[in-house]
Amino acid sequence: MKSFLFTIMQLTSEKKRTMSTSVFSCFATLLVFGFSSLASAKTHHLHWEVSYMFASPDCQEKLVMAINGQFPGPTIHAKAGDTVVVELKNSLPTEGVVIHWHGIKQIGTPWADGTALISQCPIKPDETFVYKFQADKAGTYFYHGHYGMQRAAGLYGLLIVDVKEGEKEKFKYDGEINMLLSDWYHQDIYTQMVGLSSNPFRWIGEPQSLLINGVGQFNCSLATNQGINKCNMENVQCSPMVFKVMPNKTYRLRIISTTSLSSLNLAIGNHKMTIVEADGNYVDPFTVDDMDIYSGDSYSALITTDQHVSSNHWISVGVRGRQPKTPPALAILSYLNNSQSQLELPMATPPTTPLWNNYTHSKSFSYKILAAKGTPKPSKKADRLIQLLNTQNRIDGFIKWSLNNVSMVLPSTPYLGSLRYSLKGAFDQKKPRDRFGANYNVMKPPINPNTTTGSNLYEIKLNSTVDIILQNANALAENVSEIHPWHLHGHDFWVLGYGEGLFRKKDVSRFNFENAPLRNTAVIFRYGWTAIRFIADNPGVWAFHCHIEPHLHMGMGVVLAEGIDLVKEIPKDAISCGKTANMLMNQHG
Amino acid sequence: MKSFLFTIMQLTSEKKRTMSTSVFSCFATLLVFGFSSLASAKTHHLHWEVSYMFASPDCQEKLVMAINGQFPGPTIHAKAGDTVVVELKNSLPTEGVVIHWHGIKQIGTPWADGTALISQCPIKPDETFVYKFQADKAGTYFYHGHYGMQRAAGLYGLLIVDVKEGEKEKFKYDGEINMLLSDWYHQDIYTQMVGLSSNPFRWIGEPQSLLINGVGQFNCSLATNQGINKCNMENVQCSPMVFKVMPNKTYRLRIISTTSLSSLNLAIGNHKMTIVEADGNYVDPFTVDDMDIYSGDSYSALITTDQHVSSNHWISVGVRGRQPKTPPALAILSYLNNSQSQLELPMATPPTTPLWNNYTHSKSFSYKILAAKGTPKPSKKADRLIQLLNTQNRIDGFIKWSLNNVSMVLPSTPYLGSLRYSLKGAFDQKKPRDRFGANYNVMKPPINPNTTTGSNLYEIKLNSTVDIILQNANALAENVSEIHPWHLHGHDFWVLGYGEGLFRKKDVSRFNFENAPLRNTAVIFRYGWTAIRFIADNPGVWAFHCHIEPHLHMGMGVVLAEGIDLVKEIPKDAISCGKTANMLMNQHG
Repeated sequence: MKSFLFTIMQLTSEKKRTMSTSVFSCFATLLVFGFSSLASAKTHHLHWEVSYMFASPDCQEKLVMAINGQFPGPTIHAKAGDTVVVELKNSLPTEGVVIHWHGIKQIGTPWADGTALISQCPIKPDETFVYKFQADKAGTYFYHGHYGMQRAAGLYGLLIVDVKEGEKEKFKYDGEINMLLSDWYHQDIYTQMVGLSSNPFRWIGEPQSLLINGVGQFNCSLATNQGINKCNMENVQCSPMVFKVMPNKTYRLRIISTTSLSSLNLAIGNHKMTIVEADGNYVDPFTVDDMDIYSGDSYSALITTDQHVSSNHWISVGVRGRQPKTPPALAILSYLNNSQSQLELPMATPPTTPLWNNYTHSKSFSYKILAAKGTPKPSKKADRLIQLLNTQNRIDGFIKWSLNNVSMVLPSTPYLGSLRYSLKGAFDQKKPRDRFGANYNVMKPPINPNTTTGSNLYEIKLNSTVDIILQNANALAENVSEIHPWHLHGHDFWVLGYGEGLFRKKDVSRFNFENAPLRNTAVIFRYGWTAIRFIADNPGVWAFHCHIEPHLHMGMGVVLAEGIDLVKEIPKDAISCGKTANMLMNQHG
Repeated sequence: MKSFLFTIMQLTSEKKRTMSTSVFSCFATLLVFGFSSLASAKTHHLHWEVSYMFASPDCQEKLVMAINGQFPGPTIHAKAGDTVVVELKNSLPTEGVVIHWHGIKQIGTPWADGTALISQCPIKPDETFVYKFQADKAGTYFYHGHYGMQRAAGLYGLLIVDVKEGEKEKFKYDGEINMLLSDWYHQDIYTQMVGLSSNPFRWIGEPQSLLINGVGQFNCSLATNQGINKCNMENVQCSPMVFKVMPNKTYRLRIISTTSLSSLNLAIGNHKMTIVEADGNYVDPFTVDDMDIYSGDSYSALITTDQHVSSNHWISVGVRGRQPKTPPALAILSYLNNSQSQLELPMATPPTTPLWNNYTHSKSFSYKILAAKGTPKPSKKADRLIQLLNTQNRIDGFIKWSLNNVSMVLPSTPYLGSLRYSLKGAFDQKKPRDRFGANYNVMKPPINPNTTTGSNLYEIKLNSTVDIILQNANALAENVSEIHPWHLHGHDFWVLGYGEGLFRKKDVSRFNFENAPLRNTAVIFRYGWTAIRFIADNPGVWAFHCHIEPHLHMGMGVVLAEGIDLVKEIPKDAISCGKTANMLMNQHG
């Protein structure tokens, strides 16, 4: 056990793992709070370089997209109101790249949203693009690639926004633990992308590993009660992450999921979790034994270290909603208070996450998420209702996901530029539909022969209130309907309600106008619907899509535009491709 | 054997293999000659789409870069003086792409040379670039990717230029057989590129297979006298290519090599080959039992089908100059005159290519290549002498190839644009050296501590005559010096001579001014030098580099510029990146 102990301690210092640093930064933050200073907002200048490196997140080596040689990328720490400037150099040999700042609204800076061909052109190899935006609201966020399937190649990291100096969080805690959850495939993303776009279709399958802060262990089945024999505890690269805590304290766990496919559940042995934040919004605190996290979600959960002062506890992360073929990820919550000699593996078996198909359990968790007091409430009425039917379709033999019979393809000119400059022919002009056929049977495989691919756009009236009903349905195979976490760029939305089967007008009566939670990501359950409402108050072009990387690649998304005439001058290098490049090059020529 | 027979016949028709079609096209050509018509030059409009597909060139599936779903890409057939227009759409998900037309001089169209960041910006995904150029001279050419290591991903094909209508070749033949030779790696090119750019260095190793017209068989050791058991003759995808011939005819074999690494030797059982063309230039015919082909070379060889009318013969392609770990590629020359029932494998064992390290044999072949009568002769004197010392170096821990202590890196703005528009700071302004240290010991590992990477440029006076001495040396390891085939864009050059050891002034007396062959690719042998001469009569920016893909990636090249002020207006989409894009977007803004 000594070598294991040494291994873990060495790792903690060598790799600057998140926990110890974040605890100290939190202490520093609390110290500053003591002074109640009201220092003005800061600007954080960051120089980042995206490149490939060889890494073995789960002890199997492959190419990983790294930032400044780090995987996951560096954690950004800012305070609400601060400006973040990231000079992003693309050092990939032949590929473009962008980075999306997930949860940041980009008010006044829609060109910095980092969505390739929606808000900007991909940054060319050897070129640098400057993202400059305001961290508009305290919360737990992250960033990730948003071009092709580059997120799945490892291009992601955390973005933590603390409350302004002098302000206090709504809850108290003594330290922070950050957990960036992801799933991991051994197959390269090119093979994945081409397979998904092939006929016959090649599905990416279940991930090989789950990662916590970029660390997992392939084929390690510790958590499935098969003993530790199959796990290599000596290998520094993929031995379980250890989060050290002091007894009798309260810790804020910041948990985000940037999985490519998997929906997750997290449980900590002998510790309950009190959920206090979701997607950068306070929620009415509630306490659970385990929590679900879908791709694109972020949460803060408080835990109290009320167990024996020298105990250790497993943290398990398992798969939900799909029959798991991936062993749970493991980490250790260690009370051992820097006393190296006492560090050892927890005696207990890791907590078992709920059965993958216990949907009642999943819904129960989502339904508990309600707005904290003081959260703005939705108005009683919306100006527009868009019902988006999510269907899996076969289009010319290729399997796609469609919304109201259109499977999203992106144009070669970013919408933001072509709309701002009223360029013709840059995308499909046919307006996408707000409704689907009234008699659609969501319980059966799709019968929609007119499904097509398209780069159509939803134009939204500025400052209007929009309801979107995300309607799930049966996939191509009988008796299959999948979970989809939908993420909206540029806005928070209220989750007005969830329901089973086809949404009907009368379901409006069940909408929650009292304490609907504000989120930027919401899940639709199998065969169900989810109603969201947002105010279109952010001039720009915004993606709204399933956060599952292969589903997005297969067209599961729509694009919304609002108040384009109020968009200020877009930096030229954000739109130096396609028709906007031609326009800029010819404007006086 | 019947199923094998069926297999081959089916393949021949299904895959439209080169041989049968080219024989017919040749017959058609000869027919036209009979009329001695002088029809005006044609324009060939081609619509190409580059995308990935799954393919199994050697019966092992991997992602392949295909053109219009074909690997290798479509063969272009044109006549001298014709115009070729290729509208190239990039349908790769996230990568840029270009295509270089190897051997085409691009007179008046330097922006169509297809060298990323030298002659043009990489074509962005979903965008189309139009290559328009003249097939200036009859000969055997090819095309290939010239960005990152995309050639090694399979982005290549043949470009055959026949003599003008009404003109005759210098030699007679009854049919044509095209053989596009390549080597094949199972590792994807991203892993290869990152490995080559890593510290510690990761070499790509020897190829897994050799391919003839895109077909090989992994781990099939038929040619090494181990019997046919290890080769799968039933598999249609990688059974040997069959070239059908009629007895007592003369065939023109057009043979090109676009290998990533391997130098090759080709031999045909019981048939001698008479070399008549090299790189689009007639050579003084000479006859050999086997021929060497380096990456970037193209040849025409005449064979006479003077064996038994119902015989079959193996064609072997083996590795030279590096200890081979790759079994020879095999094809069959079949006399069986369309009589399916007689088709069978040759009884004899395949011809054995010379020992890989029989350098005397290799040199003997190269030395035999001399200009045909009527070939323009070099002038007696040159205006400038550039001596390029090829060294392998360790720069900041990374292994690179350097020329006169500079390892080539390309700028993010294509030279052609930044030079044409006199943009400052687009590349390293320090002029590269025409000489290296006089006392450099080419027989020992390099002692050149000042080696650096750079995007420097050789500026060449228009219409001047330039000699370049390519000087080989010892690599980083003791007693290692490798073969490098150097290819010059935009020009043919005379090969004035080869020598051993360090080139010295007195070696000029050995230059061949009588019948120096014109080529666009020339090899330097281990520890040797090769002297070439060209006339800088083609306004543009031209790469001159080792044609071995990993060596080029490691910096083994230089860039030459001549007569830039005479370059006509460059299409904007050739230079819509980097500083030229900024200039074009700001020129009147």
